[in-house]
Amino acid sequence: MSKDLTVAILGATGAVGTRLIQQLADSTIPVGQIKLLASSRSAGETRQFRGQDVVVEEATNDSFDGVDLVLASAGGGVSKKFLPEAVKRGAVCVDNTSAFRMDPEVPLVVPEVNEQALYQHKGIIANPNCSTIQMVVALEPIRAAYGLNRVIVSTYQAASGAGQSAWNELDREAQEHLDGQEMHAEILPTKGDKKHYPLAFNLLPQIDVFEDDGYTHEEWKMIHETKKIMLGDMDAPDIKVTATCVRVPVAVGHGESVYFEVADDSATTPELQQKLADAPGVTLQDDPDHQIYPQPILAEGSRETFVGRVRPDQENKGAFNMWVVSDNLLKGAAWNTVQIAERLVADDLVRVP
Amino acid sequence: MSKDLTVAILGATGAVGTRLIQQLADSTIPVGQIKLLASSRSAGETRQFRGQDVVVEEATNDSFDGVDLVLASAGGGVSKKFLPEAVKRGAVCVDNTSAFRMDPEVPLVVPEVNEQALYQHKGIIANPNCSTIQMVVALEPIRAAYGLNRVIVSTYQAASGAGQSAWNELDREAQEHLDGQEMHAEILPTKGDKKHYPLAFNLLPQIDVFEDDGYTHEEWKMIHETKKIMLGDMDAPDIKVTATCVRVPVAVGHGESVYFEVADDSATTPELQQKLADAPGVTLQDDPDHQIYPQPILAEGSRETFVGRVRPDQENKGAFNMWVVSDNLLKGAAWNTVQIAERLVADDLVRVP
Repeated sequence: MSKDLTVAILGATGAVGTRLIQQLADSTIPVGQIKLLASSRSAGETRQFRGQDVVVEEATNDSFDGVDLVLASAGGGVSKKFLPEAVKRGAVCVDNTSAFRMDPEVPLVVPEVNEQALYQHKGIIANPNCSTIQMVVALEPIRAAYGLNRVIVSTYQAASGAGQSAWNELDREAQEHLDGQEMHAEILPTKGDKKHYPLAFNLLPQIDVFEDDGYTHEEWKMIHETKKIMLGDMDAPDIKVTATCVRVPVAVGHGESVYFEVADDSATTPELQQKLADAPGVTLQDDPDHQIYPQPILAEGSRETFVGRVRPDQENKGAFNMWVVSDNLLKGAAWNTVQIAERLVADDLVRVP
Repeated sequence: MSKDLTVAILGATGAVGTRLIQQLADSTIPVGQIKLLASSRSAGETRQFRGQDVVVEEATNDSFDGVDLVLASAGGGVSKKFLPEAVKRGAVCVDNTSAFRMDPEVPLVVPEVNEQALYQHKGIIANPNCSTIQMVVALEPIRAAYGLNRVIVSTYQAASGAGQSAWNELDREAQEHLDGQEMHAEILPTKGDKKHYPLAFNLLPQIDVFEDDGYTHEEWKMIHETKKIMLGDMDAPDIKVTATCVRVPVAVGHGESVYFEVADDSATTPELQQKLADAPGVTLQDDPDHQIYPQPILAEGSRETFVGRVRPDQENKGAFNMWVVSDNLLKGAAWNTVQIAERLVADDLVRVP
């Protein structure tokens, strides 16, 4: 693949879009031409790509004429509207929204786990939810070596996972609180719901809306996306997964307390640590004697998934706890999207079959 | 018991001490005289008790002459030094430090769970760790009705659990961050360790120091205190417990994601919710349709333990998730201490046997 590609970024001005531009610029993808697309509200703004000014255009169906590759992060509704049109025009789309993730025809890909699923694509590839990605990157080397029966995860998710406006809201609320004023919430826990609560100096055990069964949609995503990525089937019973998702007053970087049971219960903590240290995309930060463990402020800006606090459940053989942190805007969003695109280029898959 | 008591508060000027004074003032305990004790550094300061000014005195052995009841929260070393002397002088001591919690001769009490253990006291009663108390208050009505095999908890603990100075540090760091300055950490994750990291807009998966097995002492406490309170033995195998403890940038109010397996797996979510709603010390806040769930900023100032997000693990029968929040300075510390003292008075146990 030496052909230069025309790449469009749909949703180029958001928290993730900004990082898509930067991750694409830093990637191995041969970009011949770049198009930055957004809503009419952002059209006319300018962004830099590899040192050149690029004017943001309003996205229309015709925007995708001549485009080889689309990286989309403008919301599920926007992806549903435009990506099938882009595919019709011959573009391969990597979509960082939930619009197509559970479509059995659409591969849901974390390259460290299931790059081979890319070969099945029919024009659209889905990027998983941020909290799912970092968890499966950490679990995959363990699953590959020892099998995996069960996962129980509690998340500590940053405000930026709900977008730039939620991040801004956290900062504003924090200043209000420090000034002794009442905090005013307008966005979190989620734009799409009725009530809004402050996140600064608080915890919100709601991410996305509630399903009828009492789980939030974010928790549902972690359960079913994990199965689809690791097992190829969103309802596969082989790995049992349950999740509690909590928004915490952190700007960037999700934390996850992950409890898991392996199939081969002869596995030891040093062996697990070695598998993690050797795994692609994982940086092991696990040295309690020197107080080394993953932290959001240390992970911000990195493409890696950081893992530490690996230790056995002392009363259940084959069960372990670990602590996983990653930049939710990079590996959880922009980097995984660009990484998928890099793999598409390397595997000669930038064409609609 | 109608005799008025002489009550001493040891450590009267800290975050918990301030609340001990207030909780005692609001209690049913017949206080005839109050003594506020602290280190020489705070001696001479004045605090109000039931509308009267009380001068803080430096604690010495002689401070406890004529004292009936001591409420202690000045650190483990201070309790170890003074409480045996106070007991010699005839005072019954309720200790909110870790000094005596694992002493098999010392009852470790959460009144909603094991008030009867007070009858075994030999002068000192220990108040459990904050994160343990709110968890066992929520688990006890479930254990009593359905039995309890296993608990997997991830905590979201507030800065004030590490004292007023840690709380102040969080506020200072948050302002530094909002001002675009570097954050400076001097206390957290724990005063007693070498390295210090910022908590504001961050997560610290270390509370207290590390044990040789990779668990922190806070996690060790949650495991062994839970067993001692619920089963009477810090190593009882009947309930298997594992814990991951994380400090979060919240001022007051610990959150806990609690996963548990009951023995009687016919238990349903509505039954569990009813048991929780009927339980002493528990307020059920569990109405996803109306976005009602426990939050630290709603729990601050209350003596209650708030429980919500109760829902079944859909792939493991008899297993459930729930979300538990309480004011770590009240039920987690000052209120549980005063509540123990109230029960000692009601049960006619304010005497050294």
